[in-house]
Amino acid sequence: MAETLKVAVAGLGTVGAGVVSLLARQAGLIAQRSGRPILVTAVSARDRDRKRDCDIGSIAWFDDAVTMASQADCDVVVELIGGSEGTAKAVCEAALKAGRHVVTANKALIAIHGTELAKLAEEHGSALNFEAAVAGGIPIIKALREGLAGNQIESVQGILNGTCNYILSTMRDTGRAYAESDPTFDVEGIDAAHKLAILATLAFGRAVDFDGVYIEGISRIAAVDIDFAEELGFRVKLLGMASADSEGVMQRVHPVLVPANAPIARVEGVFNAVVTQADPVGTTVLEGRGAGAGPTASAVISDIMDIAAGRFGPTFGVPVANLLPSASHPIERREGAYYVRLRVIDKPGVIAGVTAALRDEHVSMESIIQRGRDPNEPVDVVLTLHETTEAAMKRALGRIEELSAVIEPPHVIRIER
Amino acid sequence: MAETLKVAVAGLGTVGAGVVSLLARQAGLIAQRSGRPILVTAVSARDRDRKRDCDIGSIAWFDDAVTMASQADCDVVVELIGGSEGTAKAVCEAALKAGRHVVTANKALIAIHGTELAKLAEEHGSALNFEAAVAGGIPIIKALREGLAGNQIESVQGILNGTCNYILSTMRDTGRAYAESDPTFDVEGIDAAHKLAILATLAFGRAVDFDGVYIEGISRIAAVDIDFAEELGFRVKLLGMASADSEGVMQRVHPVLVPANAPIARVEGVFNAVVTQADPVGTTVLEGRGAGAGPTASAVISDIMDIAAGRFGPTFGVPVANLLPSASHPIERREGAYYVRLRVIDKPGVIAGVTAALRDEHVSMESIIQRGRDPNEPVDVVLTLHETTEAAMKRALGRIEELSAVIEPPHVIRIER
Repeated sequence: MAETLKVAVAGLGTVGAGVVSLLARQAGLIAQRSGRPILVTAVSARDRDRKRDCDIGSIAWFDDAVTMASQADCDVVVELIGGSEGTAKAVCEAALKAGRHVVTANKALIAIHGTELAKLAEEHGSALNFEAAVAGGIPIIKALREGLAGNQIESVQGILNGTCNYILSTMRDTGRAYAESDPTFDVEGIDAAHKLAILATLAFGRAVDFDGVYIEGISRIAAVDIDFAEELGFRVKLLGMASADSEGVMQRVHPVLVPANAPIARVEGVFNAVVTQADPVGTTVLEGRGAGAGPTASAVISDIMDIAAGRFGPTFGVPVANLLPSASHPIERREGAYYVRLRVIDKPGVIAGVTAALRDEHVSMESIIQRGRDPNEPVDVVLTLHETTEAAMKRALGRIEELSAVIEPPHVIRIER
Repeated sequence: MAETLKVAVAGLGTVGAGVVSLLARQAGLIAQRSGRPILVTAVSARDRDRKRDCDIGSIAWFDDAVTMASQADCDVVVELIGGSEGTAKAVCEAALKAGRHVVTANKALIAIHGTELAKLAEEHGSALNFEAAVAGGIPIIKALREGLAGNQIESVQGILNGTCNYILSTMRDTGRAYAESDPTFDVEGIDAAHKLAILATLAFGRAVDFDGVYIEGISRIAAVDIDFAEELGFRVKLLGMASADSEGVMQRVHPVLVPANAPIARVEGVFNAVVTQADPVGTTVLEGRGAGAGPTASAVISDIMDIAAGRFGPTFGVPVANLLPSASHPIERREGAYYVRLRVIDKPGVIAGVTAALRDEHVSMESIIQRGRDPNEPVDVVLTLHETTEAAMKRALGRIEELSAVIEPPHVIRIER
């Protein structure tokens, strides 16, 4: 059997501890399947004495992760610190410059600095693997980079943030708004956007373009929207979607209504799913747990095992020089149907004003629901609009918002069938 | 860029023609992602002059596929002839002995001769890839061999035969029995069993053991069973299932009732799906088209591209010498719930006789449905049995079959929750 692959782990939170303990616990299996033993030789974390679910007694300790990355006795550096800047980035750069391979679970880092890090990896003949950065334990990076490599990918869409999916599932089950409303990376769609930018790069062979992702979170989704969606035969999901045409790529993360019987509608709670359309394979769906120590450790370890077995190539499947320039379409190019909820004072002529505004912008209405008539009280009016352009929809809603009876900016959710 | 990878294709049916034309049509993309151009240099098929959806004008022709396998100017031989014996096997053996890599879509061949062919590949340092043999374009082989390689796999189950799934979906939609009842490999479960034996080998690291698969097809499933299943909140599916315990593996293919809201229940028509339970990743589901020229060609080409990029190792993930001996449990070890449909003459005391037989074998009944009472006419009585062993269930049904009012052997479908 070939010689031992030595691994240094930067960051010993739940995922880091999971990786260290799993490499020890399944050492025999992992060595057999990798063709060589894999051993953790160095670790670094903020607090040496913190209690952890792994034994680091016999492993070299470094107070400074960047020093470890360049100086530890290791072949691979695993970066589990997180964040797109600071230590995490410095660790990866130091490791690659020292000729080490890098495995990371850091979606922000790859989404923002992926292209430059891939270039650095290429210059040093190193692997830069990041299976754990997208959709936890689901091997979607490998599937896009290798399993579907003979295909022209047409679109990728997915439930990429388990927290948002859990919040939306819970709102639907309980009929109530979610209590904790911290405007975190999760709720605002940033985390899903990081992951989508990575998927789009692999799918379409373009440089990573996080700034080109249109992002809208779930904080404006109300319990009443989920109710109306049900009534109309839809579910509300936060989706990341990327599709390519000859002129560029559209990347977007926003809440959508999907038909209740669509495969993606049934992905509930903390599960993630990615649906790929490609020629010639057609539709494929990969589903599994999107976060947590176990799934993330599984992905990190499969990345390390690929390195152990010598199964690695360019970071994004093609050399960096061959990545096309990123050119992302603005959301205004979207064409599709829309759900619109208007908060209006229920008085004569409101609906006439709304429908006139739609007619003037050549936007056609598919259905309308108005519940609870209390003259001169605020009520919800829900419209669904037939396929139109985002730009025409926005012009029509601009007119509607100016109507005196409309007392809130319209609530819009895009419909994806 | 590295030198061209030369490919010989044996068999030019729809899949073979799809592979040849796709390699030409997406040559640029494929070369970029593989790190080298891939070129078809030789082909062989039964009839040179048949009209095909690919251009073979400039490609060397061989009347004899086995001769091509050993003598053509090529690095890889793609076997698309099919069948576990005869030419297909001879082509693979000749190619491996000549030091060529082999890519095949042949599930029967791998299920029956996989271990010996893997040994031959190992002896010659060649790849033997078979992604297309299981679940069409879904990259499940790569997922089990590499993507989930750090996991202890606990079970794999799947809808592995699109024809059976289509028949069952159609029976449910139309309420009628399927018209074409040829006892083919599909309907009798043989095809699904080939695929299951391959999945079990990868999942559990045991030598391929097709003979150890318990197989029962869908030919005894009646439209009335599908109706009763619906009434009880289930769907009827043909599943392949493999699970491991410390003493061995149980491999089985048979119709099952699954809860109507289970992910696998919703996989309809020609789609395939594979659900894996593993530690620490948890549940993952991969779904897509299970057959057809496009999906199969996609899988074949990803296998060729792995070879082009040098991403290959032992056939089943570990060296053949490390595969555990296959030891498959008999179906009698199964424990679970059961659906039983009895065809009885509706006369006093029938149900008493049935329930007494169950009681005597300590099998407990969960529910009973009897529809349409026509004294002295045959009617269906449907029971569901609580969790019990297959052996106890069979003893109880043996007693029931002896009751004079029971006029057909009981129809049994296992319930998987």
